Amino acid sequence: MTAITEAPTRSIDYSALLGHQPAPEPVTEGEVPTKDLLIINYSGDLEKVWATLILTSTSAAMGVKTRVFCTFWGLQNFVKDEKRITGENWMQKMMSLMQRPGISHRKLSKMNFLGMGPWMMGSLARKYNVASPRELLDVCHEMGVEFIPCQMTMDMFGLKPGDMMDGMAPPVGAATVIGLMTENSVPLFI
Amino acid sequence: MTAITEAPTRSIDYSALLGHQPAPEPVTEGEVPTKDLLIINYSGDLEKVWATLILTSTSAAMGVKTRVFCTFWGLQNFVKDEKRITGENWMQKMMSLMQRPGISHRKLSKMNFLGMGPWMMGSLARKYNVASPRELLDVCHEMGVEFIPCQMTMDMFGLKPGDMMDGMAPPVGAATVIGLMTENSVPLFI
Amino acid sequence: MTAITEAPTRSIDYSALLGHQPAPEPVTEGEVPTKDLLIINYSGDLEKVWATLILTSTSAAMGVKTRVFCTFWGLQNFVKDEKRITGENWMQKMMSLMQRPGISHRKLSKMNFLGMGPWMMGSLARKYNVASPRELLDVCHEMGVEFIPCQMTMDMFGLKPGDMMDGMAPPVGAATVIGLMTENSVPLFI
Repeated sequence: MTAITEAPTRSIDYSALLGHQPAPEPVTEGEVPTKDLLIINYSGDLEKVWATLILTSTSAAMGVKTRVFCTFWGLQNFVKDEKRITGENWMQKMMSLMQRPGISHRKLSKMNFLGMGPWMMGSLARKYNVASPRELLDVCHEMGVEFIPCQMTMDMFGLKPGDMMDGMAPPVGAATVIGLMTENSVPLFI
Repeated sequence: MTAITEAPTRSIDYSALLGHQPAPEPVTEGEVPTKDLLIINYSGDLEKVWATLILTSTSAAMGVKTRVFCTFWGLQNFVKDEKRITGENWMQKMMSLMQRPGISHRKLSKMNFLGMGPWMMGSLARKYNVASPRELLDVCHEMGVEFIPCQMTMDMFGLKPGDMMDGMAPPVGAATVIGLMTENSVPLFI
Repeated sequence: MTAITEAPTRSIDYSALLGHQPAPEPVTEGEVPTKDLLIINYSGDLEKVWATLILTSTSAAMGVKTRVFCTFWGLQNFVKDEKRITGENWMQKMMSLMQRPGISHRKLSKMNFLGMGPWMMGSLARKYNVASPRELLDVCHEMGVEFIPCQMTMDMFGLKPGDMMDGMAPPVGAATVIGLMTENSVPLFI
């Protein structure tokens, strides 16, 4: 569980973590962000989960309550890196075999070239001081971003709580997501 | 037209329809969901339209006014299953030939393997009690989800009202969608 | 800079620009659109940037304050058409070589067929009076849509201000986007 009881302070120097980004406009003391951020992380592609983690780490650093609903291919991002084969039956095992789960094993949706694309992206990121997905994920955990697995996806892919990275929230269903969206969360489907 | 005049009651047991999902938190009597849900269903991929239908069937069951704007590849999801070739000129016919329209003929965006991927997904869904897109679509219709075709897409793909599944709303343009989004709808682009 | 100081009037006949779309419902005099539109244009695919530009040109014509945050593959859409190779080091140059930047060089995400798909789409668009991405982009500029580059993407792809189309806003980071989303903008991730 990564639920936080106190809002993170605004003094975290996340600009160092996130590289060259211009600082956000200062927030007037006493002003409260009125909306939460909810990202439905549906995709398992490297560039999409990277986008998710850049947005959520920034958002949490700004004091915005931030949640990630991890569903379908996107749930694979949050399986422990060291898990190789997941699932209970041959179909689930075959799917995990063909699409290796874990944040460090993501592929680009295009220009993957057997791993050369992601390697180039990683090189450029280091060169320009942009944190890797792995590093951003750690930052997100420290800042209290909630990562919430989709129960239906857990079932369909045969994933067990022990397969998932530490610190995830308990699984929920679509109704919880609808509730958040129609109440106070700004949603993005990524 | 699937417009509804009365909100569906909250007593529908959609958990039976949607499988293992945890029940939503109970809503206090008299509390009204303040936002509508608007999904822009842009993609024709199996997994994306499945996500659309899981979210919309759940949302409608919770009493949230729910609309789906069906555009570009996403409009193909809502062509009648039995239509094989659509369109008026050779280009439109060729596109429908190469991407068979209809909710029962969707392909996965990855791991499709000439239909083996979707078959495995279907098997897993049945095994874990998750409704198929076809079944969810029927549920959505019963619960009053409005499926609204994009006029521009109808024109470009040469689709006629008779090609589309029964019960769709009249086609609209982008301006109607912008109106809904900037007024009271929470939008997702899927 | 495309920032506008006065809201565009509602009298622009954008239906002529956007083809067959039904007119929006008339807005009562004095009624103010309460939300801004923010599109995070993440994808470089032809059909996705087309969707972005149809939505933003319509939105701006309706008097809604409209912004496009251009990030990752999506930033490539807004490089000058005549630029062929961009970037400073071999990795950046190679990426631009393999994915030609510029609004007139976009490819379909599926059915591209070495350019035949986009050519067919272009033919159908002309036939049915739908403006091309190039034309819509000009319309957007005239109507004051702000196109805002992502600073991190500029860095990672080695793009310089001179590579980008005229009239773009200064680059910003994720924090600015989070600020807009959690304040008064309805976001779409495309």
